[in-house]
Formats: sequence, structure tokens, C-alpha cells
Amino acid sequence: MERPRHQGMAKNTNMRWRLPLVCLLWEVAMIVLFGVFVRFGPEADAHWEEEKQEMNLTSDIENDFYFRYPSFQDVHVMIFVGFGFLMTFLKRYGFGAVGFNFLLAAFGIQWALLMQGWFHSFKNGKILIGVENLINADFCVGSVCIAFGAILGKTSPIQLLVMTLFQVTLFSVNEYILLNILHVKDAGGSMTIHTFGAYFGLTVTRILYRSNLEQSKDKQGSVYHSDLFAMIGTLYLWMYWPSFNSAISDHGDAQHRSAINTYCSLAACVLTTMAFSSMLQKKGKLDMVHIQNATLAGGVAVGTSAEMMLTPYGSLIVGSISGIVSTVGYVYFTPFLESRLHIQDTCGIHNLHAMPGLIGGIVGAITAAAATEDVYGKEGFIKAFDFTGEYRTRTPSIQGGFQAAGIVVSLLMAFAGGAIVGGILKLPIWGDAAAENCFEDDVYWEVPEDEESDVYHMHNPDKPASP
Amino acid sequence: MERPRHQGMAKNTNMRWRLPLVCLLWEVAMIVLFGVFVRFGPEADAHWEEEKQEMNLTSDIENDFYFRYPSFQDVHVMIFVGFGFLMTFLKRYGFGAVGFNFLLAAFGIQWALLMQGWFHSFKNGKILIGVENLINADFCVGSVCIAFGAILGKTSPIQLLVMTLFQVTLFSVNEYILLNILHVKDAGGSMTIHTFGAYFGLTVTRILYRSNLEQSKDKQGSVYHSDLFAMIGTLYLWMYWPSFNSAISDHGDAQHRSAINTYCSLAACVLTTMAFSSMLQKKGKLDMVHIQNATLAGGVAVGTSAEMMLTPYGSLIVGSISGIVSTVGYVYFTPFLESRLHIQDTCGIHNLHAMPGLIGGIVGAITAAAATEDVYGKEGFIKAFDFTGEYRTRTPSIQGGFQAAGIVVSLLMAFAGGAIVGGILKLPIWGDAAAENCFEDDVYWEVPEDEESDVYHMHNPDKPASP
Amino acid sequence: MERPRHQGMAKNTNMRWRLPLVCLLWEVAMIVLFGVFVRFGPEADAHWEEEKQEMNLTSDIENDFYFRYPSFQDVHVMIFVGFGFLMTFLKRYGFGAVGFNFLLAAFGIQWALLMQGWFHSFKNGKILIGVENLINADFCVGSVCIAFGAILGKTSPIQLLVMTLFQVTLFSVNEYILLNILHVKDAGGSMTIHTFGAYFGLTVTRILYRSNLEQSKDKQGSVYHSDLFAMIGTLYLWMYWPSFNSAISDHGDAQHRSAINTYCSLAACVLTTMAFSSMLQKKGKLDMVHIQNATLAGGVAVGTSAEMMLTPYGSLIVGSISGIVSTVGYVYFTPFLESRLHIQDTCGIHNLHAMPGLIGGIVGAITAAAATEDVYGKEGFIKAFDFTGEYRTRTPSIQGGFQAAGIVVSLLMAFAGGAIVGGILKLPIWGDAAAENCFEDDVYWEVPEDEESDVYHMHNPDKPASP
Repeated sequence: MERPRHQGMAKNTNMRWRLPLVCLLWEVAMIVLFGVFVRFGPEADAHWEEEKQEMNLTSDIENDFYFRYPSFQDVHVMIFVGFGFLMTFLKRYGFGAVGFNFLLAAFGIQWALLMQGWFHSFKNGKILIGVENLINADFCVGSVCIAFGAILGKTSPIQLLVMTLFQVTLFSVNEYILLNILHVKDAGGSMTIHTFGAYFGLTVTRILYRSNLEQSKDKQGSVYHSDLFAMIGTLYLWMYWPSFNSAISDHGDAQHRSAINTYCSLAACVLTTMAFSSMLQKKGKLDMVHIQNATLAGGVAVGTSAEMMLTPYGSLIVGSISGIVSTVGYVYFTPFLESRLHIQDTCGIHNLHAMPGLIGGIVGAITAAAATEDVYGKEGFIKAFDFTGEYRTRTPSIQGGFQAAGIVVSLLMAFAGGAIVGGILKLPIWGDAAAENCFEDDVYWEVPEDEESDVYHMHNPDKPASP
Repeated sequence: MERPRHQGMAKNTNMRWRLPLVCLLWEVAMIVLFGVFVRFGPEADAHWEEEKQEMNLTSDIENDFYFRYPSFQDVHVMIFVGFGFLMTFLKRYGFGAVGFNFLLAAFGIQWALLMQGWFHSFKNGKILIGVENLINADFCVGSVCIAFGAILGKTSPIQLLVMTLFQVTLFSVNEYILLNILHVKDAGGSMTIHTFGAYFGLTVTRILYRSNLEQSKDKQGSVYHSDLFAMIGTLYLWMYWPSFNSAISDHGDAQHRSAINTYCSLAACVLTTMAFSSMLQKKGKLDMVHIQNATLAGGVAVGTSAEMMLTPYGSLIVGSISGIVSTVGYVYFTPFLESRLHIQDTCGIHNLHAMPGLIGGIVGAITAAAATEDVYGKEGFIKAFDFTGEYRTRTPSIQGGFQAAGIVVSLLMAFAGGAIVGGILKLPIWGDAAAENCFEDDVYWEVPEDEESDVYHMHNPDKPASP
Repeated sequence: MERPRHQGMAKNTNMRWRLPLVCLLWEVAMIVLFGVFVRFGPEADAHWEEEKQEMNLTSDIENDFYFRYPSFQDVHVMIFVGFGFLMTFLKRYGFGAVGFNFLLAAFGIQWALLMQGWFHSFKNGKILIGVENLINADFCVGSVCIAFGAILGKTSPIQLLVMTLFQVTLFSVNEYILLNILHVKDAGGSMTIHTFGAYFGLTVTRILYRSNLEQSKDKQGSVYHSDLFAMIGTLYLWMYWPSFNSAISDHGDAQHRSAINTYCSLAACVLTTMAFSSMLQKKGKLDMVHIQNATLAGGVAVGTSAEMMLTPYGSLIVGSISGIVSTVGYVYFTPFLESRLHIQDTCGIHNLHAMPGLIGGIVGAITAAAATEDVYGKEGFIKAFDFTGEYRTRTPSIQGGFQAAGIVVSLLMAFAGGAIVGGILKLPIWGDAAAENCFEDDVYWEVPEDEESDVYHMHNPDKPASP
């Protein structure tokens, strides 16, 4: 079977030396840096027996591992299966979706352990890591997975690795500014992960604009089973989002509350997404693109406020609104962004992460500003917002202002960072494919014979064997 | 490509205004009711710091969140991925299986939080929720997912929402009668979830009987890959069932024991299912329908007794029997139910949930009746059956009698409720499809071009682009 | 549609009486043995209330259930979904991959509970089980799943059950020798699970060598969607491997440390796998076989040492090396093994489990030999290696020697056991398929009509209905 679409391939997409070089150099660098800097934190170190006595702990169950490991594993599934499979909806880019997501996330978590470690876990010249660092590394990489959604199908694996390198770095700087300088709360990452990641990715894809992308338009759609594979990703993201938003909250009531708020928000979001998906189609049929994506907006939109006293009904309101905004975005904004602003957003991250992330930041600012000692209790109030030490005198309304400032900082970092990184990725050395080969696994992957020809020709003894 | 099968479509299946209206009105109602009634329970509220001191707890790890959250997440996966993907076995109804299950469960858990809350968590005019409420809401919705299995492919999404509304209500009433009035034990829901849910669904599908359903018979089967998608659902249900049966058991040994009993029962069930699947086919070949479904009967059948001292060998016996009963049911009972009793049971829930649920109720009654202080220990005996307060004097044999009464009540509620709800669903206003369009996603979903035509026509530049 | 390939079928593959007989006899034997021997351990027994007082425990959270159950569930997913779906890459053997893996694992865990119970949990004539026994049973069966990978597609379900019976037995003996006689550490099973399981399987497949297997070569490859199904298995194995290696480690820091080491090793492994996959192909394209398998070698290779003070950078080094070894193995060793040594290794377990397992054993021996009180702390040192009682005087270098001896013992057990079991499986009574029918579900499964013919003929009313 001739594949005439490959004859026009002019760009050199051969990864044979470039990809191995980048991966191996990187891994060597990681080994050296880990060797110099990274050690086990006290709760993972064999000296824990002595540590326990010093901290007056009577049981191993007090180890942070038991507070956070189940949530960590859920987050881990969201990053690798959730994001990976969510992006398999394209009919001929399933390998790239799952495989490149796997590559960039495995690459990114190592760098994130270092970058975030230097900022947050650096003691006596060493980065001391524990389960919370693993969660934070996964979170950081989550923002790269989001950005990947915008450029899915149009970039080489090397471009993705270069983007990961820079984005993890910028993420960590932005996170440090928000959490440590502005003293902002953002346990589920509405600002640090979603707003930053999405606008970063949108800026990158704007800079990488391809005017002739309609040449691969026939491959930008889904097929029946690719839509089902994508639903695996959707559901794991949806189900485990309560773990995502509660994973690094304070022990006890804060983790508990975050999970409940997120559960409520996501449930409401499904209903409004279904409603608007049906309403905005002439024949009232549901669109899988909306179900796969907009149903998740409710998790994004309570990312900042879930650990606060948002209340279950507050969560329902936020989830309902975000489902509507996201679905409307898919129908009206995405085509507009592409045609007018030249932002080609493959997965529609503007609808799933950018707008709901902004909502999440704003809801967080309002919820913080509205906090009272009456609602939180005297001790709970101080604990919830860490109003201790130099922040002893901060009031809720001031906290709300800082939360709002966090949104602005995240946006600025995303735009500036995305523009610079986009420029770097535009260099003609990274091996990206020509427009007619976008959204096609065959460029970077050994792809087996088509299913159909195999079955139809199974009785044909002359057929060349599959690999 | 013409699709002549659609030309005969006479019924109006357009959801454009009906579905959005139902979803949005519903969500507004939920917001109002949550606003009036639902608040965080003490372990999820920011006042927990004070609560801890009052309850004399020394560690945050004593928060119920850490006892139950991992099990909650497993149950959550069972409801959304387990049931959702189990039903994707139909060749052209994968979107409906996963998508409508998603819709009805997200719809149902909100209502379940309220209904169950009014019955069980109502204090000073407020429903106080925590992680156990989330598990119970998922459980309640599980019974709707079971009923969905009977009518899969034959109903409109609005019918499913209407059914969910009523079934959750009836479930909560039945649960209240069993747990609070009869003081029955049923932590894994053999009676409340499986028996009730299955006979409810079977009654509904009986009332919705379609005499001309053979018109869509070609779509009632599976294809190779749809059977593999269904196995994802099967395995997640199978693997996480120990969490299901132990999720709301008492802390400590009861949760531990429930998981072990369920693990044993399920392992045995796989062997007897495989044995009978092979034995009942002329050529001795295994049937995927049995493997996908009957292997799970062992989890259903220990739903009541798993937290009791059923013992591992007792679990093997119960699991073995339920696998046999379920497989035999698929081969002989399902055709009989359809041809003689006009019960069209798409997924065979009679075999997977109804009969094993009855077995589970009976085994639970026997296990309770056989309980002795010797086996449970003096304190363990009282704790296991809550023989305190007004139930201080209840004996095991009396408890066994009440357990048996619980089965009867569940059956009556299911038949009566199913008959009424089935009657409501028969009204010609809900937009269900004509018989020839059953089991076909195209009625309610935007379905992408067929995979085959895409691949074959990929080189054809005149082909209209996919959505 | 005629299927001429079946006309040459000479062997009797009908399972109708043989498979049911084996399954049912087995299950009866299990019920009897469980009835005689298996009881709940103290933490799962209703007497736990009294036990708690005796052990002076103040909280139910001290029950081992809460330390290990989340890890158990992750391991459970790895065995059933991880291994099951990893093997679905073959285009026409998805039912067999998932279904037979399900069967043999459900069969094996029951026997493993007994065998391991007699060796490790036998008290006063009873085997007392708890969550740790469930994990160990899953582990034991994991070694059978590994061996299954070598003979995938070439054996009847009865052969698999017979192999499971013997392999579980030998596994338990080998495990007893290593853990109790040699006093070796191997929490993640580099030696007991991977080295033993893989060389056992390779020996079996060597004995079952089929000289004419090229007759089914057209079915030995993958198709596009079967490769995506396999990635579900890969990712769940990869994500949950930290739980695998930490599941039975000591409470506290050891579990925590194991998870971190494994996380790091796996991340590094992905990068070197991708690098070598691209480098070893002429056009630099990535090969799904490598991504699906070699990315997991990093988990195998720290199986022994993860709970030791391997350190994060040590883990990166081990993970990097194992990814390289494994990928090179797929490209060069597997063809060599088949052509020269007549070892037909369907899934390439030599690359994924055998070589990385050996690396894991060696790294464990070195890490143990290099242990010092300085690194572990005085108490931590004794606790990490159980240098108590009769092992009070054992030094790290002696421990290293015993660890190395453990590798040798595992290899010898695997070769000897594999040879004997392979000989048994060669008997012409088990119903394996002829060479031209290998890798074909149709032999043992009711397979639905081909997807393609269904879709194309959907408008044809004369088409016979699917089952």
C-alpha cells in the first residue's frame, strides 16, 4: 500500500542521534546532580528510628508516607495514564500521545526533584526528599503535560524535552514566588499548575504557528476506539482529582476537606458539561470532545480553594460554572483562537486548564478574603492560611489580594516564558515534522501494519510478516 | 456512505432541549439543597483542631480520612471505570456505556449525599458529610449502575436520569429500613446494593419490554476490541472488590477481614466460572461474556458476610458456588428470561447481581445466625453485630432472622419500585430510540467516521474532514 | 468467511472436559486444605479487640491493614491488569493474554497462600493470614505471570495451570531457602520473583521448543490498537512498581525509602530505554516493544536494594543501566536466543525480568556488603538487615556473600525446576495447539466476528447475528 503523503516529506525528522544524545547526556547530568545534592529526608532515612525518638513519635504510622502515599499513587496515575491516555483521542497519534507523555514526564520529574528541592527542601547543602517531594515533582510535570496538549502532534520528542527542561525550571521559580514570597495558598495548583501550564503552552503553540496545518486535517479527528482509549484518561483524571487537590494539604481536616470539595465540584461539572454539549449541537447529540475534557474543569477550578472552607455547595457552584465555561470554550473559543489569534490548540487546553485555572485562582482569592475565625475556628484559621511568624498579622482580605497577585504573576511568567521557549523551539534543528505529517505516529515510531490489511489478508501466504 | 438503517427512524430522539433542561434544573436544585443542608462533618471541618482536643486524639492519623480514603478511591474507580467499561462490550455502544454511566453516576451521587444524609447524618438541621458519606453515595449509585446494565442500549439519557432520581430515593429508604429499623448488617451491600439494584432493573426492563428488539440484534454482540475494553472494567471491579466490601466496615479487624474474605471468594469464583464456561460449550471454548461477568459473582455473594467471621474456606465455598450459578445463568436463564418472561437483560445482571446478591443475603443470614462468643470473642461479638443499646439482648439466631427479612424487604422494594419507575419511563416523552436503533451510539452521540473508511481513504483528498 | 488456516489443525485442543475437571478438582482441594489449615491472623480476627489490649495498642490504625493495604491494591492491579494487558500486544491473542493470566493468577494465589503459609505463617497447626500474606501470594503468582510471558500463545490453559501448580511450589521452597536459611533480604523480589520466574520460564520454553513456529509468524506481531492496550499494562506496572518494592518492607522509613528508590530508578530507565530504542534503529524510530517492556527494567533492578540505603543517585545509576541492558537485549539477544539456543521467548522476559533480575540481585549484594552503621544509624542498621538473634554477629560483607548465594540458588532452582516442569508439559495430553494455530485466540475462545466485516455488512440483513 503506497502512502503518497510521505513523498512530500522534506524535513529531516530522523531522531537516531539527536534523541539518544539528549536523553543520555541528560541522564548523566541527573546522576551527577543527584549524587551531589539529593539525599533521603529524615522520614525515609534509616536513621528514622532515632528521629522518631527525638520527635517523640510512638508509632511508625506517623511517618508522612502513610498520610500521603495513597494520594501520591493516584496523582502518579493521573500524570502517566490520565494525561497520556486523554491525548490518545487522535486516530493516528496514540503512540505519540502515551509514549511522549511518558518520556517527558520521566525526564521532568528528575529535574523537578532538583529544582523544587533547591527552593523548598534544601538543608545543609543537601536536598532531602520524601513522598511529598515526589508528589510535587509529579505536579510540576503535570504543568508540562498540560502544555504538551496544546502542541500535541506537531512537535518532535526533542522539542518536548527542551520544553520540559525550561518549563520545569520556570514552574519552580513561579511556584517559589507564589508560595514563599507572596505566601499564597495553592495546594491543588489552579495557578501554579493549570494557569501557568496552560498559558505557557498556548504561548508556545502561538509561536510555533503553522499556516498550512490543514494539510493534516484528516488526521486531527478521532476514530471510535481512540475515543474510548481517551475516556480511560478522562475517567482516571476525574476519579483521582480529589487526591490531586488534597495530596499536599495539611494532615487531617485539610486533606479530608479538599477531597470532599473536589468530589462535589467534579460531580456538578459533569452535569453542566453534558447539558451544554447537547444544547450547542443542532441535533442535540453529545460530543465526546466535551465529555472527555470539560467534565474535568471542575477539578481545576477548585484547585486553590478546595482545602479552604469552600463548602460543598460552593463547590457545586464552582463546578457547574466551570463545566459551562469549558464546554462553551470548545464550541466557540477554540475555533476563534485558531482563526483569529493563530493559536492552534490541539487538545483545547484553553478550555480545560486555562480558563478553569483562572476561575480557580479567582475563587481561591475570594474564598481566602472571605475567611473568618468564626468559620475556621481560632486555631483552624491560623493553620489553614499559615498566619504564623512574619505572616502573623496578615488579614483575610490582604491574603485575598496576594492570591490575586499570584494569578497575575503566573500569567506573566507563562507568557514571557512561553515566548522565549517558543522561540527556542522554532529553531530548525529539533526535527519536527512537516505539516502534512503532523498527527501521525509513523514519523517517530515503528508502526505495525494496519489492522485491516492484516485481517483481510490473513489467508494470504504471500503477505510480508509483521515486525 | 449511506446508513439506510436510519431511514426508518420514527421516534424523536433529539435531546437538544430536554437533556440540558433536566441537567441544569437538577444542578440548580442540588445547589439550593446543598446550600440549605450540607456542611462538612467534624473531621473535615477547620474546627477539627478543637475537635481533636475534645476527643482526646493525639494524632491527625486518627482522622477517618486515613482509615477509609484509599478504599473510597478504589470504590470510585469501580463505579466509573469498572461499571463504565464493563458495559463497553457492545460493538457500537461504547460511548453510551461509558458516557451515560458517567452522567448518571455524577447525577446520582449528589442526590445520594442528600438522601442518605437525611437518614443517617442529620444533626441540628444539617447533613454533616465526610469520606464515609462519599463511599455510601458511590455505593448507592452502584445500584443504579447495576440497573443500567439491564436496560443498556435501549433507553435515552433522560430516562436514565429519571430512573436515577427515583432509584436513589428508593435505595435510601430501603437502606434505612434494613440498617436502622431491622438493624441488619450489610457492609458490602449484597441486599441493599445488588439484590435491590438488580431486581429493580429487571422489573424496569420487563415493563419496557420491546417485542421487536431483534431488529437491532446485529448490534447486540461484541467485536474483538470491545471485549478487551470490557475486560478493563471486569478486572477493576474484580481487583478492587475487597475494598468495596471493606470500605465502610468497622475500623481495624473488620476492614481487614472483609478484604481477605472477598479476595478468597473472588479467586475461587474465577476457577468455577472458567470450568463451567468451557463445560457448557460444545467445543469447550471459553466465552468472554462469562469471564467478564461471572468471575465477579464471588464479590457480590460475600457482600453481607465478608466482615463477619466467614473464614477463608467459607469464602472459597461461597465464591465457588456463585461462579457456577452465575455462569449457568448466562447459558440457560438469560435466554429463558427473555423468551418466556419477556425480561430483556442486556448485560445479564440477573446472573451477576441478582442471584449472587440473593446468595449473599442468605449466606449473611446464616453466618450471623451461626455466630458465637467463642468465635468472635466477647467484645468482638458485640462490636461485630452492634449488639448494644436497644439491641443489647438480640441473639445470633434472631439476627439471622432479621437478616433474612432484609432480603425480603429489598426484593419487595425492588419489584414495587421498579414497576412504578418502569411505568413512568414508558411515557412517550423521554426520547428513547426505535428498536432498530437500539445499541447504537449514533442516536445520542456525535460518532466519528468509521475507522476503516478513514484508513482506506486516507489518501483521498476529497474526503470530508472528520469533526 | 472461510478460515483455511484451521483446516490443517490436527491436534485436539478441545478443553471441554479437561479444563473443567482440573479447575473443579483444584477448587475442591483448595476448600479442603483451607478448611483444615487457614484461619484469620490476629489482626483480621474478631478477637483483635482483646489482642489490641494485650499488645498495648491504643488505636485501630496500628493494624497492619493500614500500613499495607494501599500497597496491596497496587500490587494486585500490577498482577491482573499490569501483566494481563502488557501481554495483549499480540494482534489476535488479547483474550488469551488477559484471560489466561486471570485464570492462572486466581488459581495460583490460593495455592500460594497455603505454600507460603506453611513456610512462614504456621502456628499451632494453622496458617494465620493477613494482608501481608495476600501481598506475598500476589508476588508469588507474579513469578508465574513472568514465566507465562515466555510461552505466551503457545500453550493450552491446562498447561498453564499445571505450570502454575509446580512453579508456586518451587517458588515457595526457593523463597524459604533464601529468606529463612540464607537470611537474605529481597523485599522487591529481584531474585525470588524475577530471576527465578524468568529463568524458570525460559527453561520451560526451551524444552517446549517448536521448530515450525514460523507458521504462525503473521500473528506474532501487534496491530495499532493492541499496542495501545499493552501500554495500559506497561503504565500500571511502571506507576505502581514503587508500591511493589515497598509493599512488604518494614513499617516506616523502609517502606518510604523503597518507594523513593524505585521511583527514581524507573524514571531514569525510561530515558535510557528511549535513547537506545532510537539509536538501534536505522531510521531512529522508537519501537513500541522497547517502550512497553524495557522501561520497566528499572523496577526489577532495584527489587532487592530499594529498601536499603541505595540512595536516589544510586537508583538513577541502576535504572539507567538496566534500561540499556534491556533494550539491547530486545534488539540483539532475543533473536540470538531463538536462532541459536532455541529459546522462543514471546514477550522477551529475558530482557525485562531475567537480566534486570540478575542486576537486581548483584546490586543488592553490593549494597548490603557496603552497609555501615554510619549510614544506617546503629538501630537502623540492625533493623534493616535483621541482624538479631542468631544473625546478631553477621557483618555486611558476609551478608553480601549470602545475598550473592541467593542469586545462585534461585538460578539453580529455576533451571532444575523449569526442566522438570517443561518435561511434564511436553506430554501430549494437555491440548496445546499446532504451530499454525499459535498466537490465535480462536483455538480456546469464542471469538466474535471480525470488526471489519460487522461494520461493512451492517446493512446486510442476511448476515448471521453475532453471539
